[in-house]
Amino acid sequence: MEVDYSNIKVIGFDADDTLWVNETYFRDAEMQFAQMLSSYETINKIDQELFKMEMKNLPVYGYGVKGFVLSMVEMAIELSNGDVSSDIIEKILNLGKDMINKPVELLNDVEHVLEKLSKNYRLILATKGDLLDQERKLEKSGLLKYFHHIEVLSDKQESNYKKLLNHLDINPSEFLMVGNSLKSDVLPLVNIGAKAIHVPFHTTWAHETVQEKDKNGKQYQTITTLHEMLSFFN
Amino acid sequence: MEVDYSNIKVIGFDADDTLWVNETYFRDAEMQFAQMLSSYETINKIDQELFKMEMKNLPVYGYGVKGFVLSMVEMAIELSNGDVSSDIIEKILNLGKDMINKPVELLNDVEHVLEKLSKNYRLILATKGDLLDQERKLEKSGLLKYFHHIEVLSDKQESNYKKLLNHLDINPSEFLMVGNSLKSDVLPLVNIGAKAIHVPFHTTWAHETVQEKDKNGKQYQTITTLHEMLSFFN
Repeated sequence: MEVDYSNIKVIGFDADDTLWVNETYFRDAEMQFAQMLSSYETINKIDQELFKMEMKNLPVYGYGVKGFVLSMVEMAIELSNGDVSSDIIEKILNLGKDMINKPVELLNDVEHVLEKLSKNYRLILATKGDLLDQERKLEKSGLLKYFHHIEVLSDKQESNYKKLLNHLDINPSEFLMVGNSLKSDVLPLVNIGAKAIHVPFHTTWAHETVQEKDKNGKQYQTITTLHEMLSFFN
Repeated sequence: MEVDYSNIKVIGFDADDTLWVNETYFRDAEMQFAQMLSSYETINKIDQELFKMEMKNLPVYGYGVKGFVLSMVEMAIELSNGDVSSDIIEKILNLGKDMINKPVELLNDVEHVLEKLSKNYRLILATKGDLLDQERKLEKSGLLKYFHHIEVLSDKQESNYKKLLNHLDINPSEFLMVGNSLKSDVLPLVNIGAKAIHVPFHTTWAHETVQEKDKNGKQYQTITTLHEMLSFFN
């Protein structure tokens, strides 16, 4: 598919699982959580129930590690009928702190691509994680210098992106979003007339999966690694 | 003191305890927390220890209700030497959810002042709380229409404000910040050459207090209610 990117002024990059590894750490934490509670339920059931708890709490807590930890604590109490030890609660808190303090593991070629693109475009980081967490990762990553600023969105729906474009003072056709989530980084952009490039990550959070029908007829490019972007912007 | 505001293009408003009540809810929650644990320690000691725990965790969790709740859970386990019941942990989680779901209680005259100022200035909300939480409060408050956008800062130090001004593409002398915290909303602005107006709230979080010497010789106006701003911008 040929796409015309000649209007683009600002490129937004998703952060987690687009620039650096993230979902893998959540999966690890979920697995450790399930192991801690395995005397009460099967690993599979614990995993399913935790996801339901996260979805229930999402409107209250929003995205990010802190809400995830609070949901694990609540789940541990519920699943054990109040029998869970404070030792396990403490371990859950520490799981969260460990996630927040993890070193940043960049995905392939990220720095090279950002360095090239930042010469001709204004780059922004557009994420729905926690601001402090994302600022810290950006700092640790060494990528800070390529970005004009960070935009933290409370969600990544069409309305959030419309507000973002208004705030950036640009037209939809001048904005390109790049990210690993079809649901959050690609489809809402295409729907409001902006451009989007999909770079899938091997692991996708269940909350981010989309149905086949939602993809039908939508115009966006899919690439395997960020490096392929450079062939569109030479 | 006469101050010249004729250069001002953008006015930033702090949110919590400047536009609406907030600290009062934290104080209430701290008091309830201390009551729950009163079989282990005196109310006063619990209160002091919780503040220390919050300060210890601030670099990890940042500002906002979720980090506060996580610190209360950790404190409850530590203070009780692991003896705390899951019933109390659950109550702590609910304290947090109640705080997040509280109705927004506007301070005096806020809407009238914003309505007037928004006619001639670009207004932004500049807060270090949690983005989702602040967006929700802004929506509930009915004040959304007066603000160009929300800026969530991970902290409110000079460096954070410099980034903000860079992002807004304005000079320090074109920016006025209005807020209840000398430490966060006033002094860092004055130090980088921007303007600031202090509107004290009756309750100040210990973390936000400043020493007398830090105020000496700093140029800013103090007002009792937001309404007084209108006399400077007629």
